[in-house]
Amino acid sequence: MNTRGLFITFEGIDGCGKTTQAMLTFRYLIARGYDVHILREPGSTEVAERIRKILLSNEVSMESRTELLLYEAARAEITIKEITPLLEKGKIVLCDRFYDSTTAYQGYGRKLDIRMVRTVNRIAVGNISPHLTFLFDINIKAAQARRKGKPDRLESQSTAFFNRVRKGFLEIARKERRRVKVIDGNQSVDAIFEQLKKILSRKLKTYDALHTS
Amino acid sequence: MNTRGLFITFEGIDGCGKTTQAMLTFRYLIARGYDVHILREPGSTEVAERIRKILLSNEVSMESRTELLLYEAARAEITIKEITPLLEKGKIVLCDRFYDSTTAYQGYGRKLDIRMVRTVNRIAVGNISPHLTFLFDINIKAAQARRKGKPDRLESQSTAFFNRVRKGFLEIARKERRRVKVIDGNQSVDAIFEQLKKILSRKLKTYDALHTS
Repeated sequence: MNTRGLFITFEGIDGCGKTTQAMLTFRYLIARGYDVHILREPGSTEVAERIRKILLSNEVSMESRTELLLYEAARAEITIKEITPLLEKGKIVLCDRFYDSTTAYQGYGRKLDIRMVRTVNRIAVGNISPHLTFLFDINIKAAQARRKGKPDRLESQSTAFFNRVRKGFLEIARKERRRVKVIDGNQSVDAIFEQLKKILSRKLKTYDALHTS
Repeated sequence: MNTRGLFITFEGIDGCGKTTQAMLTFRYLIARGYDVHILREPGSTEVAERIRKILLSNEVSMESRTELLLYEAARAEITIKEITPLLEKGKIVLCDRFYDSTTAYQGYGRKLDIRMVRTVNRIAVGNISPHLTFLFDINIKAAQARRKGKPDRLESQSTAFFNRVRKGFLEIARKERRRVKVIDGNQSVDAIFEQLKKILSRKLKTYDALHTS
């Protein structure tokens, strides 16, 4: 991935706090004068939002392979239409979920072949990879307690499913230590954000150096 | 593919007459007492019909990779939910379009990498392959003249696009002569169906032998 931008993703099981942390990071970077964009997955373009509706609908049942390919379709759309052009312009892009979610949920959670999932991830995003990924690790019960409102199709899965997903995320982090930084999501929002900022500031130094040179 | 059923697909560019021929084949087999099912792609299950709506909508633009992955998502759904169980029960399944359409439209038409398209085809359908594929070959102008109503998103493509798709279909047929039978779609409906029945009867002999033994 050869780009002047900075691509940061926020990962973890539902209820882990990643959306809150992504928003805090967004405001923090805006306040410091950065040109930063925030996206959510699946979604963010018209077609991707339509796909999101199918994916999260409680009214339909679908095969795991269908689910995998729908997530990848939405991902291809926002990667090509939004993420790549922004990164090429040197912007900072924050994304609430990206391909690690698919590896964790559809690979580890749904037990689809991990190599197959990685192949489709690559087909969807080409050579785009996050420069930095925050993984908010939290125990399943705490995550479930945090969720608000009626659970969507994915949120309605069993505890065993979420345990597999959580282990999957940790496995990804173990394999890609340089990119994926694990933060204990059981802490307070402020404590998590303090830890996040420390990691972020190191990446920003490299980014700033590139952009002021 | 180890199954007692018979899987026949109908392929060609829009307006080539494949839907008419699929319906004639369906009625012909029903009248002869066969247990036959007809499906259309994309579509035929609730999720797949929702995906079909996104794909054919004229209101949205989408990336070629998104289009590819959406077709494959719909295909995974009907293959796992409908086609595979029917074939395992020994039924005859007719499908109006299947993976050759994706190779021809998204591979040759949209110029996506053909090997990548074949990889995703395989991920969507597993080890399912049609036993027999009819390809109705027709010149582009004749096909365009036959289409009725407002063209959908795919039908609105340029003549150059359809020429690439047509050549793609013929290339597939050239590579898989045993499976894919090309019929001149410029003939009358009756003349086409007579030719189709001759090819079909040979396949039915093998199928009948398997089912009466």
